[in-house]
Amino acid sequence: MDFAFDARTEELRERLLAFMDTQVYPAEAVAREQRERLASPWDTPAVVEELKAEARRQGLWNLFLPDSGGEAGGGVGAGLGAGLTNLQYAPLAEITGRSPDLAPTALNCAAPDTGNMELLAQFGSEPQKKQWLEPLLAGEIRSAFAMTEPEVASSDATNVRTRIERDGDDYVVTGRKWYISGAMNPDCAVFIVMGKTDPDGADVRRRQSMILVPRDAPGVEVRRAMRVYGYEDHAHGGHAEVVFDGVRVPASNLVGEEGGGFAIAQARLGPGRIHHCMRLIGMAERAIELMCRRALSRTAFGRPLADQGVVGNWIADARVTVEQLRLLVLKTAWLMDTVGNRGAHTEIQAIKIATPRAVVGILDRAVQLHGAGGVSQDFPLAELWAAARTLQLADGPDEVHQRSLARRELSRYR
Amino acid sequence: MDFAFDARTEELRERLLAFMDTQVYPAEAVAREQRERLASPWDTPAVVEELKAEARRQGLWNLFLPDSGGEAGGGVGAGLGAGLTNLQYAPLAEITGRSPDLAPTALNCAAPDTGNMELLAQFGSEPQKKQWLEPLLAGEIRSAFAMTEPEVASSDATNVRTRIERDGDDYVVTGRKWYISGAMNPDCAVFIVMGKTDPDGADVRRRQSMILVPRDAPGVEVRRAMRVYGYEDHAHGGHAEVVFDGVRVPASNLVGEEGGGFAIAQARLGPGRIHHCMRLIGMAERAIELMCRRALSRTAFGRPLADQGVVGNWIADARVTVEQLRLLVLKTAWLMDTVGNRGAHTEIQAIKIATPRAVVGILDRAVQLHGAGGVSQDFPLAELWAAARTLQLADGPDEVHQRSLARRELSRYR
Amino acid sequence: MDFAFDARTEELRERLLAFMDTQVYPAEAVAREQRERLASPWDTPAVVEELKAEARRQGLWNLFLPDSGGEAGGGVGAGLGAGLTNLQYAPLAEITGRSPDLAPTALNCAAPDTGNMELLAQFGSEPQKKQWLEPLLAGEIRSAFAMTEPEVASSDATNVRTRIERDGDDYVVTGRKWYISGAMNPDCAVFIVMGKTDPDGADVRRRQSMILVPRDAPGVEVRRAMRVYGYEDHAHGGHAEVVFDGVRVPASNLVGEEGGGFAIAQARLGPGRIHHCMRLIGMAERAIELMCRRALSRTAFGRPLADQGVVGNWIADARVTVEQLRLLVLKTAWLMDTVGNRGAHTEIQAIKIATPRAVVGILDRAVQLHGAGGVSQDFPLAELWAAARTLQLADGPDEVHQRSLARRELSRYR
Amino acid sequence: MDFAFDARTEELRERLLAFMDTQVYPAEAVAREQRERLASPWDTPAVVEELKAEARRQGLWNLFLPDSGGEAGGGVGAGLGAGLTNLQYAPLAEITGRSPDLAPTALNCAAPDTGNMELLAQFGSEPQKKQWLEPLLAGEIRSAFAMTEPEVASSDATNVRTRIERDGDDYVVTGRKWYISGAMNPDCAVFIVMGKTDPDGADVRRRQSMILVPRDAPGVEVRRAMRVYGYEDHAHGGHAEVVFDGVRVPASNLVGEEGGGFAIAQARLGPGRIHHCMRLIGMAERAIELMCRRALSRTAFGRPLADQGVVGNWIADARVTVEQLRLLVLKTAWLMDTVGNRGAHTEIQAIKIATPRAVVGILDRAVQLHGAGGVSQDFPLAELWAAARTLQLADGPDEVHQRSLARRELSRYR
Repeated sequence: MDFAFDARTEELRERLLAFMDTQVYPAEAVAREQRERLASPWDTPAVVEELKAEARRQGLWNLFLPDSGGEAGGGVGAGLGAGLTNLQYAPLAEITGRSPDLAPTALNCAAPDTGNMELLAQFGSEPQKKQWLEPLLAGEIRSAFAMTEPEVASSDATNVRTRIERDGDDYVVTGRKWYISGAMNPDCAVFIVMGKTDPDGADVRRRQSMILVPRDAPGVEVRRAMRVYGYEDHAHGGHAEVVFDGVRVPASNLVGEEGGGFAIAQARLGPGRIHHCMRLIGMAERAIELMCRRALSRTAFGRPLADQGVVGNWIADARVTVEQLRLLVLKTAWLMDTVGNRGAHTEIQAIKIATPRAVVGILDRAVQLHGAGGVSQDFPLAELWAAARTLQLADGPDEVHQRSLARRELSRYR
Repeated sequence: MDFAFDARTEELRERLLAFMDTQVYPAEAVAREQRERLASPWDTPAVVEELKAEARRQGLWNLFLPDSGGEAGGGVGAGLGAGLTNLQYAPLAEITGRSPDLAPTALNCAAPDTGNMELLAQFGSEPQKKQWLEPLLAGEIRSAFAMTEPEVASSDATNVRTRIERDGDDYVVTGRKWYISGAMNPDCAVFIVMGKTDPDGADVRRRQSMILVPRDAPGVEVRRAMRVYGYEDHAHGGHAEVVFDGVRVPASNLVGEEGGGFAIAQARLGPGRIHHCMRLIGMAERAIELMCRRALSRTAFGRPLADQGVVGNWIADARVTVEQLRLLVLKTAWLMDTVGNRGAHTEIQAIKIATPRAVVGILDRAVQLHGAGGVSQDFPLAELWAAARTLQLADGPDEVHQRSLARRELSRYR
Repeated sequence: MDFAFDARTEELRERLLAFMDTQVYPAEAVAREQRERLASPWDTPAVVEELKAEARRQGLWNLFLPDSGGEAGGGVGAGLGAGLTNLQYAPLAEITGRSPDLAPTALNCAAPDTGNMELLAQFGSEPQKKQWLEPLLAGEIRSAFAMTEPEVASSDATNVRTRIERDGDDYVVTGRKWYISGAMNPDCAVFIVMGKTDPDGADVRRRQSMILVPRDAPGVEVRRAMRVYGYEDHAHGGHAEVVFDGVRVPASNLVGEEGGGFAIAQARLGPGRIHHCMRLIGMAERAIELMCRRALSRTAFGRPLADQGVVGNWIADARVTVEQLRLLVLKTAWLMDTVGNRGAHTEIQAIKIATPRAVVGILDRAVQLHGAGGVSQDFPLAELWAAARTLQLADGPDEVHQRSLARRELSRYR
Repeated sequence: MDFAFDARTEELRERLLAFMDTQVYPAEAVAREQRERLASPWDTPAVVEELKAEARRQGLWNLFLPDSGGEAGGGVGAGLGAGLTNLQYAPLAEITGRSPDLAPTALNCAAPDTGNMELLAQFGSEPQKKQWLEPLLAGEIRSAFAMTEPEVASSDATNVRTRIERDGDDYVVTGRKWYISGAMNPDCAVFIVMGKTDPDGADVRRRQSMILVPRDAPGVEVRRAMRVYGYEDHAHGGHAEVVFDGVRVPASNLVGEEGGGFAIAQARLGPGRIHHCMRLIGMAERAIELMCRRALSRTAFGRPLADQGVVGNWIADARVTVEQLRLLVLKTAWLMDTVGNRGAHTEIQAIKIATPRAVVGILDRAVQLHGAGGVSQDFPLAELWAAARTLQLADGPDEVHQRSLARRELSRYR
């Protein structure tokens, strides 16, 4: 047992921290100003492309992608990843979470593209990789993952209602999705859509398939931007309601095999969740820093807030919480590397339960400490809070994961 | 001791509940649609004016105003209030909280106008009443209360930096305020501004004064809409940042006497706080109703949510919490009626601490139960949450009131 | 609606507060000393009998008993109650909770006797009243209520396993009970035992009956004192494990009719729960007082605890909590008086859920503020905590009541 | 970074787990029965000595002691420790926490002796080691650490009032201590007493010294057993109030130098705290196991508790919490090994804050799940709860550590 980062991680951390200091943090104000002058709020500020170019130049690009091409040989996309383990990538993802509107995108490590790229790398056909994975890895296009539906409790994947029906050499996709993150971004070129190819199949976990649907296919309507506590989340391409009205795509667009959708979704979720958790921890660190700075600089009733009431407790508890969360996430990453995503299932659920909840609490206190400023657009805290809070729902609400984790624990004593 | 409402309250409750059912709830969807077609988001949907006319016709108008004119005789504004006690008004305010974007305005009982009208009725000169109170009571104009400043911890009123300087027959107002609720509404005609007339005065509580500043006075700049989480709160006229750049108004615009600002602010806060708390309880009731309906109608893992996990606990705890909050608010209203606002000071602080915090918790669980819908614009829950959460900061953060209440408790044993 | 106590309540409160100041609080140390010299820890210190005599002399006796004999006429026990409503008695019960080891007993208002006396007054035959109710009302004997069983989840009353079998003119009682409060007290003369007379009856709520079993009947074994967080609770007669091994009693010992046990138990629980809640609020008030005194008198790191950290928040939150709890309990008492115990069912469940939980929290913080003293025998806080905590389990755990309350709430929308 | 235990740890864990299964768990019931027949409750059940002998035979002895004698050479006590690092010992200490009344003592790894042995090994003179450390390491005597005083807030060590006054070749010790853990045990032979040798010294952290006082020295009065909630904690030698009334000991009994008491106390606390935390985690694991077994075996309202309400959430949250706590404690152990106790100061405070608090919550829910059994002597849960709860006070209350940790965090931004 050893709690020190390895040399490669340390080296990348230093480079990334320098990149944050010299490029990302200064770009935050620039992006805000550019954003106010965009033709559409869904366009991307110019500084973001500059950051991407610089990150790529510095070799801080696609760090999330385990496959460095060494083994896989000549396939499309091979060799484009940084070849890091989950354990090596995790502390880097955390750092990007300190500036979540810019840093993940700058490094081409933003959700939902990372999950989609992994999915395509693992399950995509060569033509699919050629068409979609390659430009994604190059940061030329964005993508979305269309799973959640408004009419049903989507945390129970067997509820999915969207239909993917075979018709000759095509599939026809019909359904309504919402909270499709990234889909408002005009650079978003493709959806990975979850639907049912065999809605009455005996095995409820073999009814679903995944299929690639170009965003500009006829019958695709990106209807509206769903909000998250009032925010449209422009920096991440928003969260769209999308209607698929008899959308026809070639049968070759199917990812993997018919009936494989459920299994692919499961495979996709592990890394996606741990990335979210690492970035959340970065957000929490940012919140602690802001809390400390505010507490030291603001005076009320004759003394700095830092010397008053519960402020110290908030800061101490935040620190204690973050230290624990980080270790559990790192251990989970290590398990994914050593025993695989399936072997790390309990821990992945554990961090999915623990992290958003705890970070929501830290951000809430940071908001409170900032008074009216805390809920305003002048500090990032309220928007970070909304993002963290939503992660108690996204990818299944806390309660679903608690239920599943409890069953596993109980099964040891049955 | 008697926990039954009196006959007048019961009668008004019935009439108001009928008004909600027949007028307000049906108008919610109408207002939403009209709002999408407004020239400016700060304009008022037509249905709101129709509701106001109907409420006035039904005698559900200015219910908040204790003064029914009977005693005060011939002054301006006298006779325009409903003459209800705080205890009689409280359960009516609660009901309006079930539809907080429409009902309070429909009844001319919306913040911050209610507090401003009370302030003018109590401290305004006859000309001030004639000019501002009369059209406010008639629902022809709106008003704002300009106290909070971005640069200082405004919960400590001695921190206020805005200057109100005498210059001949005028006062000149200079300062920057933010979160001035209602100020984005083009119908908002006047600000009551808190500032310092005697910044170096020996008595720190006599340095402040209040002055009336027309919103269209030269030097007034309504700079931008501050946000509350991602919301601009159009239905309530938003929360503006306002700069007063050497704004010159006649000396007769001073409310009360020089140095009286602190005392007037204190007097204003009691009723304002209790109204907020009553409406919050109405919001909580709406949330409970939505939780129950969702839990009964949504199915996951083969059973309705109502039969699962912690949902029952959430509903039970919400009910238990609301019953307690309501009683404390009603008792506080009764104390204000029987021993005055000063005598009810501890209880006013208690409800200010207890109510937003508890309602935030109830709304948060209601959001969670609604999944992605909960954080969206398709249910009112996320926006209600943001409003309730902000009330843990507005009029002083929880921690300031806890500190003050604790001192009072401790003083019994010193 | 009126939040003032009526004249009778005010007068009794004053008399009782004086009795507490002059008799009860001074007796606390005396009782502690006498207790150390008792032959058996289950004996009663002499000062308790002195307090009883004095309370009776002062007319502070049997205040709990609604029946003052006026209406019922000449039955046994009639005229011995104080004739107070629940609403009048509640604030008096609260006061006794400030010294829960002495005051309730001094006034002959201690659990479980109060519930047992009410049960006998309501359901007992005249001979039963003569034999047991009369000496109970006179404070000459004590009693116990034997319901909970170790082998089953007793919160579900249909689980009860104890058998009450008819055999000629007798019933034979066989079963094992535990946590039979008061049963270790040698003055405890009688058990009211819940058991099944018709274990296979079609109606699961008609299988149970209640029967009177003298503590000295052959076959009754008071086996051991059950503990509550290490405490044996000598002042309340402990909590015994009792085995009924074929105990034979006359058939006339049955209370009410065969099959009526479930209904009688339900009837008994309402008043019992509200009394517990009122006393809990008195405990919380005592805890707040102790917190304040400690915070003012203890110095660490150069300042009194009262000026530090979270202490103020604890005190403020405790005050805010207690005010709300008290009002809900009082309203519940009022409902019991005006619409009956059944009509007040929801509120009774609400206070059963809310009060122990909240008071446990207050006591826990009071313990923390007292450091090592808090967990010790030198302050009453740890023992009060254990008593309050146990009330989250006694008469059904919180979760059972939450479940039931939620169902009732949900049923409004089905 | 690597989360696997090393080979030595794995091997010892296996041996210790086997020892628990074959020796310790079976001895729990035996010890309970023997305890009921002891002449004094402070005596040690025979099975404990048998466990000690067996543990020593199996090489599971003094595992806590880092010094294996390799370096120190021939000093007394050298070579008697197992030579484990903190990181190696931590998971073993956790396992002993699953049976905290027996296992730590069986392995001669019980508080407060471990801390005292480390203190003597590090700061003791050779004669002191010979006289006290040697028999302690051999498990022949026990010891106590006398620091906390009833009259002052002892978390602020500068408050200590006990006097250690030089008089010729002796020191005279005068003062009153309480909660001196282990001091009721007749095997306890010596106290390490903290007091002031220079009460008016300029440097407040140089006023204190530590001195060895034999328990049988004239003037030592072990006055009474302090309770923790209702427990006397017989298995750990209780928590005594001890009066030192002019106790005269040779000057050579001073540990280290005059004025070194504060520094020695600081040095002692680090390992002591981490051992406590590891054992607490073991207690939490025991609680989870008991929760699962109960939830599966108990039926109410027609279904096992495991399928109902919040039980799953409790179990899941307990698991998630324990995983995080364990990792933070292990990392802290690693830091102590790699950068020293001083370098691990923040983390030691973090685990001191986080662990008792979280484990208290887990135990509380386990109690609730067990109903009346949970608060009783028939399950270990209530007593474990009391022990864990007390650790939120012992070695300084949570609030003191939160305050200190917050200052350290804030200092990064000053």
